[in-house]
Amino acid sequence: MDDKHSGGTSLVIFLIYGSSLMAMITALYFARSVVRIPVVGDTPEQEAKFKDISEAIAEGAMAFLAKEYKYVGIFAIAFAGLMILTLDHSNTPLHEGVYSAISFLIGALTSSLSAFLGMKIATMGNVRTTIKAKIGLSEAFSVAFQSGAVMGFGLVGLAVFGLITMCIAYGSIIEEKELLMEMVAGFGLGGSTAALFGRVGGGIYTKAADVGADLVGKVEQGIPEDDPRNPAVIADNVGDNVGDIAGMGADLFGSCAEATCAALVIGATSAAIAADPFAIYFPIIISAIGIPISLITCFFARLDSKATSAEPILKKQLLISTVLMTIACIVITKWGLLESFVINGKTVTNTNVLISLLSGLWSGLLIGYVTEFYTSHSYRPVREVADASNTGPATNIIYGLALGYKSSVVPVIALAVTVYLSWTLAGMYGIAIAALGMISTIAIGLTIDAYGPVSDNAGGIAEMVELGPEIRERTDLLDAAGNTTAAIGKGFAIGSALLTALALFAAFLVRSNIQALDLLSPLVFAGLLVGGMLPFVFTAQTMKGVGVAANAMIEEVRRQFREKPGILKGTEKPDHRTCVAISTAAAIKEMIAPGMLVMLTPLVFGYLFGVEALAGLLAGTLVTGLVMAVSASNSGGAWDNAKKYIEAGALGGKGSEAHKAAVVGDTVGDPFKDTSGPSINILMKLMAILSLVFAPFFVSHGGVLLKFLK
Amino acid sequence: MDDKHSGGTSLVIFLIYGSSLMAMITALYFARSVVRIPVVGDTPEQEAKFKDISEAIAEGAMAFLAKEYKYVGIFAIAFAGLMILTLDHSNTPLHEGVYSAISFLIGALTSSLSAFLGMKIATMGNVRTTIKAKIGLSEAFSVAFQSGAVMGFGLVGLAVFGLITMCIAYGSIIEEKELLMEMVAGFGLGGSTAALFGRVGGGIYTKAADVGADLVGKVEQGIPEDDPRNPAVIADNVGDNVGDIAGMGADLFGSCAEATCAALVIGATSAAIAADPFAIYFPIIISAIGIPISLITCFFARLDSKATSAEPILKKQLLISTVLMTIACIVITKWGLLESFVINGKTVTNTNVLISLLSGLWSGLLIGYVTEFYTSHSYRPVREVADASNTGPATNIIYGLALGYKSSVVPVIALAVTVYLSWTLAGMYGIAIAALGMISTIAIGLTIDAYGPVSDNAGGIAEMVELGPEIRERTDLLDAAGNTTAAIGKGFAIGSALLTALALFAAFLVRSNIQALDLLSPLVFAGLLVGGMLPFVFTAQTMKGVGVAANAMIEEVRRQFREKPGILKGTEKPDHRTCVAISTAAAIKEMIAPGMLVMLTPLVFGYLFGVEALAGLLAGTLVTGLVMAVSASNSGGAWDNAKKYIEAGALGGKGSEAHKAAVVGDTVGDPFKDTSGPSINILMKLMAILSLVFAPFFVSHGGVLLKFLK
Repeated sequence: MDDKHSGGTSLVIFLIYGSSLMAMITALYFARSVVRIPVVGDTPEQEAKFKDISEAIAEGAMAFLAKEYKYVGIFAIAFAGLMILTLDHSNTPLHEGVYSAISFLIGALTSSLSAFLGMKIATMGNVRTTIKAKIGLSEAFSVAFQSGAVMGFGLVGLAVFGLITMCIAYGSIIEEKELLMEMVAGFGLGGSTAALFGRVGGGIYTKAADVGADLVGKVEQGIPEDDPRNPAVIADNVGDNVGDIAGMGADLFGSCAEATCAALVIGATSAAIAADPFAIYFPIIISAIGIPISLITCFFARLDSKATSAEPILKKQLLISTVLMTIACIVITKWGLLESFVINGKTVTNTNVLISLLSGLWSGLLIGYVTEFYTSHSYRPVREVADASNTGPATNIIYGLALGYKSSVVPVIALAVTVYLSWTLAGMYGIAIAALGMISTIAIGLTIDAYGPVSDNAGGIAEMVELGPEIRERTDLLDAAGNTTAAIGKGFAIGSALLTALALFAAFLVRSNIQALDLLSPLVFAGLLVGGMLPFVFTAQTMKGVGVAANAMIEEVRRQFREKPGILKGTEKPDHRTCVAISTAAAIKEMIAPGMLVMLTPLVFGYLFGVEALAGLLAGTLVTGLVMAVSASNSGGAWDNAKKYIEAGALGGKGSEAHKAAVVGDTVGDPFKDTSGPSINILMKLMAILSLVFAPFFVSHGGVLLKFLK
Repeated sequence: MDDKHSGGTSLVIFLIYGSSLMAMITALYFARSVVRIPVVGDTPEQEAKFKDISEAIAEGAMAFLAKEYKYVGIFAIAFAGLMILTLDHSNTPLHEGVYSAISFLIGALTSSLSAFLGMKIATMGNVRTTIKAKIGLSEAFSVAFQSGAVMGFGLVGLAVFGLITMCIAYGSIIEEKELLMEMVAGFGLGGSTAALFGRVGGGIYTKAADVGADLVGKVEQGIPEDDPRNPAVIADNVGDNVGDIAGMGADLFGSCAEATCAALVIGATSAAIAADPFAIYFPIIISAIGIPISLITCFFARLDSKATSAEPILKKQLLISTVLMTIACIVITKWGLLESFVINGKTVTNTNVLISLLSGLWSGLLIGYVTEFYTSHSYRPVREVADASNTGPATNIIYGLALGYKSSVVPVIALAVTVYLSWTLAGMYGIAIAALGMISTIAIGLTIDAYGPVSDNAGGIAEMVELGPEIRERTDLLDAAGNTTAAIGKGFAIGSALLTALALFAAFLVRSNIQALDLLSPLVFAGLLVGGMLPFVFTAQTMKGVGVAANAMIEEVRRQFREKPGILKGTEKPDHRTCVAISTAAAIKEMIAPGMLVMLTPLVFGYLFGVEALAGLLAGTLVTGLVMAVSASNSGGAWDNAKKYIEAGALGGKGSEAHKAAVVGDTVGDPFKDTSGPSINILMKLMAILSLVFAPFFVSHGGVLLKFLK
């Protein structure tokens, strides 16, 4: 065995750093080729418009991030203080709380940094995509794709870099591997806390702006979408970036960091793993190996000049990366990993680990494709929703909800099989590995995901600059593909969130010395019931948050149209800034309640009722959270595309009664798919990692209410 | 101890039969006083109309029941065959399958019989309530209340009679108490199977007729609700009875029978209980003692002649019966029950049993009152939904869904506390006792529940006979109270379904010799995930079932208006019969898929993956089923009352944009609150009791797929 790993620790670390570097260089390369495209117009007026609009969007995005990060910062520092106060549980000179707090802060910072970079490049790529669209579809596609790739590769590069650095830095101070990994978990918690602000706050922001812009602009005033006269149009375009880039990026960064941490924490309990450098770092290696795989996949991302849709090429990206990754997984697991090791009293072979890894990887792809089936208007489910619009908005809503509920069948079964296989074959370690498998191709996943808002923005800019219809048609083609990939991306994000949360849950149990969790204990079952309710309450809060924030936006847009009648005539300029500020302020305010629910529930519950009740609570949250997230995302996506299907000419087309009904469905679907659904990912993961990080505290101080009752 | 029970078995049995007899006599008495009211009109034409309409409703209701029972019959006989084939598990001369099958058939028959009687009297009480409304509000109230009471008392009387007879009859053949009780469980299964047809089929029927009548009549043709020219109006009125009387009755009959069976099965495992007649029959005694309590409560059900609302008096009924029942519980438990006994290795005192009983009883009341808070337009939540209608149907839907999700908090916590308390204090026996506590006042609960559709029908008849507005106003007042009590009744039904299902789940585990169910077993967790998905799929199926059935109705009503233009002019008679037939056929057809899901899933899952996976599946179903049922019922109730609030004059009143938006919400809410939500009760209970009845089969033959994999 030793021969195989003769290189030892330094070689493994060198390779991990190498691939992290490769990701960063790739990101820089793509960033450079995007930025170098000059922002020029056919006339000086057009050029000025290009610059004005893209700068307004960039400025709005940065304004949101600045405010968000201010709150993230304050919150993170306060929370770090709490960690220092509660997490000093051993009697060694080492203060665990301090180390956990530091890694927590670094995690939050890294996550925020990668979201920031993604936003930065996306708000530069959008206008450049529009400009290239004047030349041709394939040229515009390249710019949008490369902008997305900056986010994809940059984020993975940072995540891998952060994780390995953390391991090494702490490794040199702390002898005990278990303690080390526990502190690394703080890194994941930091990432997820930042993701909470990104997903929930960003989700509320984007939909408040969208609903506000649409209801007053499109419905009340009858002006087209993305019309420059609409004061909320910049906020709407900012929102696309905030929700789908910063939010999605932080979410997947969290999954990557947390699943890795969970695998590290669980793996550290095995003596065989702890003695072998390749085995120790195996969880990070999975993400690292995904980088070159994703890079190779990128070379296939060329759109033929005669192509009429970007969708097949983007979907093919997922398939190619999955196939290549399968080969890579076989190589690293069979060649690199220990032939077998004992973990938690169970002997695990590297074939077992490989099957876990591949079951995660492939069920991710399956979930992605099923999501597409339920949300693309090329297939029957969305068309049924469109048909139901013929009898009015009520039937559209009923069919859309039913579609979402039903669409959870295959994803849930796929995940149940993955859980069963990986858990049976490799214990809880297997679940963490399966989670890593699902997001191992995250660089590509994020690339095609971030591609969406860039294309969407490019279309908006084309409209605002009043370019010709053939250019708008090209950006629409790019955008349409983005809608589908966004749905697929959400499927991936949910699946990986479930597996990650489950891995964290497992790590929490290991950490709490819970070897068996009897469902037939009253406390566990009561926890399960209460936990099952939380995703519903959280959904209610985030949905209503969007409603309240959208109302503020509606009032403002109405006020501007009323007080400045010149706006609609085109003689007066609308005030974009106030709308951006309103969306920003409302988003931050409305995320407090759901944020508190997520952050406080596990802490309070664990403190009052102890670790077993908390474990029941977490399990309940996972069970309902998974189905709620899948169905909310898919219902929302289906409503959106049912509307688009009608707009493309079906059932009477734009302006028909069916179209009006479909618009109602789409508006209901907006908070479903872009706020509540994706935010549940954070709910599941954050509650689990909070429990993990605070496990030592709950073990020693938890269950006060029970002690009091006795 | 023996002194206390000197009367022994015969006295206990005598008292149980006595109270059953009391219930039946009460039901007969009320039935007689309703039926004796002559159906007379002010003119011979009016009298003919009264008779025509009420006979058409009665005929439609019986046509539905006849068809439903035909299918129930065929299905029950086939299923009994399956039981005989699979359930012969011991080597004694006794064939358990045959006994189980017989009690299954008797259960189905008793349940069907009580639903039939309830429907019969309700379709006689409706027209008599209208006639008495010509005299005054309190006179009309009495008739509606008495009609409801026939259902309430008749059903409980039959349930108690059936249960005790079953115990005695089998007791004389079978020595082994455990085996005896297991066979009695077949009785509960039979009741619940009939309830499946009643709740799901009835739920689809009522909403197909309602939506069809409204969309074509009210929306397309602009004629008022319950207008006699609408061909679907009789089907709509039939539907009220089918859904809220037959469906609700069968559901609660099931809860009562199943919770009793679960308590009997679990209790039979204790040697101390088995040796004491009072203790053996204690579960039946709880329901039996509820009968005189409910009767006393009825004496308080008098409406003052100056009263302007029937709501306070109906709500007070619940409070009075709960207080009286509390006293009765203390007496029977402290005086009658063994001071302590050992069950499943745990010593349980009668105080523990009492606390379990009371926690169920009072959390039922709490759930009822919270339900009222979230669904009555006297309070803030519904008014918020009404306000949200100002910005269109989309915001109405978003706020209504959020309300439902949020409304689950208190019920879930109340049930979690009940589960925790009763389980901790008295083991799984405690949970069954808590379930029985919650439905111990079922005679009163059903009375005020069945009162609703009778009043609703009375209003419809007043409209169709074209009585004066002051009479319609009186029936509207009665009907408004019925809406609130219907919501409360649903809350009770869900709470008791959860506890009953949990008790059955417990009995299933006892029967399968599962002492601990480790959530950290891959199979259990995978089962949990899949189980959590089932209520969503079931909801999707039932919601779409309503959509499909409603479409058939819409086509038919449109056809009649098109082919017979004289209908709208009043010169031609609409064809009610075809509409009734369409609703009936569609309801039966659309219930097949959800019915199969409920019946086959536990059987297939248990057979393929064994009892542990099945236990996980059941737990998952309970967790999501509870929240889904509560939120669907409350969202639906809130949408309905938000519309009524606007119709009463708020936000611009009838015809305003807000009203149109609220109508959309109400239409979405119809299948939520009257089909999907209540049907989940059956899903939870039926899956659990199926598992219980087939437990011996799963133990010996289950898990084939796992064996195959090994």
